[in-house]
Amino acid sequence: MLKYIHKVQYYETDQMQIAHHSNYIRWFEEARTFFLEKSGFGYDRMEAEGIVCPVTEVGCRYVSMVRFPQEVVISVRIRHFSGVRMTVEYEVLLAGSGTVCAQGFSKHCFLSSSGKPVALQRERPELFQFLKSQVCEDK
Amino acid sequence: MLKYIHKVQYYETDQMQIAHHSNYIRWFEEARTFFLEKSGFGYDRMEAEGIVCPVTEVGCRYVSMVRFPQEVVISVRIRHFSGVRMTVEYEVLLAGSGTVCAQGFSKHCFLSSSGKPVALQRERPELFQFLKSQVCEDK
Amino acid sequence: MLKYIHKVQYYETDQMQIAHHSNYIRWFEEARTFFLEKSGFGYDRMEAEGIVCPVTEVGCRYVSMVRFPQEVVISVRIRHFSGVRMTVEYEVLLAGSGTVCAQGFSKHCFLSSSGKPVALQRERPELFQFLKSQVCEDK
Amino acid sequence: MLKYIHKVQYYETDQMQIAHHSNYIRWFEEARTFFLEKSGFGYDRMEAEGIVCPVTEVGCRYVSMVRFPQEVVISVRIRHFSGVRMTVEYEVLLAGSGTVCAQGFSKHCFLSSSGKPVALQRERPELFQFLKSQVCEDK
Repeated sequence: MLKYIHKVQYYETDQMQIAHHSNYIRWFEEARTFFLEKSGFGYDRMEAEGIVCPVTEVGCRYVSMVRFPQEVVISVRIRHFSGVRMTVEYEVLLAGSGTVCAQGFSKHCFLSSSGKPVALQRERPELFQFLKSQVCEDK
Repeated sequence: MLKYIHKVQYYETDQMQIAHHSNYIRWFEEARTFFLEKSGFGYDRMEAEGIVCPVTEVGCRYVSMVRFPQEVVISVRIRHFSGVRMTVEYEVLLAGSGTVCAQGFSKHCFLSSSGKPVALQRERPELFQFLKSQVCEDK
Repeated sequence: MLKYIHKVQYYETDQMQIAHHSNYIRWFEEARTFFLEKSGFGYDRMEAEGIVCPVTEVGCRYVSMVRFPQEVVISVRIRHFSGVRMTVEYEVLLAGSGTVCAQGFSKHCFLSSSGKPVALQRERPELFQFLKSQVCEDK
Repeated sequence: MLKYIHKVQYYETDQMQIAHHSNYIRWFEEARTFFLEKSGFGYDRMEAEGIVCPVTEVGCRYVSMVRFPQEVVISVRIRHFSGVRMTVEYEVLLAGSGTVCAQGFSKHCFLSSSGKPVALQRERPELFQFLKSQVCEDK
């Protein structure tokens, strides 16, 4: 499985001396765009083809704090994809140790540039096939 | 109920021309610190008394997009508080219209400055009474 | 002179327990958009009329640290405006005390939506007159 | 010379569809901490030895816009170091093309954990020698 590495930056810390919790939502996005790009259909290509993929829901459980300048390894899996909606799951581990730092998910829909919902199977069959092929249902 | 107003900033937008979803998690924090301060026990006072209150879980459902320079009104309610854990709920409405933009929650624990869990009822009875009095269980 | 108030947020702090220096650049933008809106020609109106106003240079001297949950008062003045370029200056004071926390500037150009430089005097005379009238050259 | 690579993230874009200018200040920090770590005296070690290194001034000239998902290559050089103050310079190039995107600098002082200025030559000779050895004065 593809793994994305993020190095915690000083500007991501807060006065509790840990990475601020809001950054994990941004790391999920980093990992997701990395995953899509490396898998062969980058987010920029999606947008160039007139599809945007906004987040409709996000969740994160914080298990163990992360500090500057630690590195985290984020695994990404598409857990569900219907052609209209998609759920992506993330696990954040501390690099080296394997300690679980956080687990989360994001849900997405697909819109045209003008903001209308798009059924990918009919309107973007290539993207549909790609995402379908990336779904990973097993634990 | 106390309501917090946040004005969407240009730097909070992304190239989809909406406020980036990660910012809502920050707005929840803005609203939460505002709520605690206005209710009489600010987050800074909590930390001055040796208590930190990290986020253990966060979730947000995005219902309607928000754009620069719109204003959102965020309502905050403490939904559950056990003395050891706390759940806070948020509703984000578009100012003026009342359109629901997002709904979310954050869960928290209470730690001493050295990182150990603290039972507030015994160790910080004043903070315990304050938070207990702020719980709002009804819908 | 118009003054903009920003309350330092927890997520703006870093592990040095001060507001991270990069945030001041964002506060300048907050203050600038506030100033333009209150003066009668908001940034959103500018963009609706097909003009974007990117930053071509920015600078900030940090004089005194700012902490959560302090408030800063930011004064804004347009120091130079040629119709093609604009320089805006900022002063950040600690609310209440008047302590100078930072001083800075941003320089801007004006582009059409397609990215071409625009001479406002000829192409957007109303915006030109507005910005011209806001220039404040005296110390 | 050490070069740091940053990939522009979606959350770093704004509605002008470019990387928001405030991020460059954060990229400077990323590049600076990378440079210090790779050169043998990481920022975390500095802080572990009781020295913090706040930014006293920052500046950036934006020459050419950067977009998601481009990569930029940032070169870092310590331009001046007196034992009490330090100036670091940055150049941001577009990966591949070599186009100059931005140039900037940051100035720093050295403080003890309690916030007092520290003369490194006397109080932290090893760090003093390290930084002295990294100064690069030639263009």
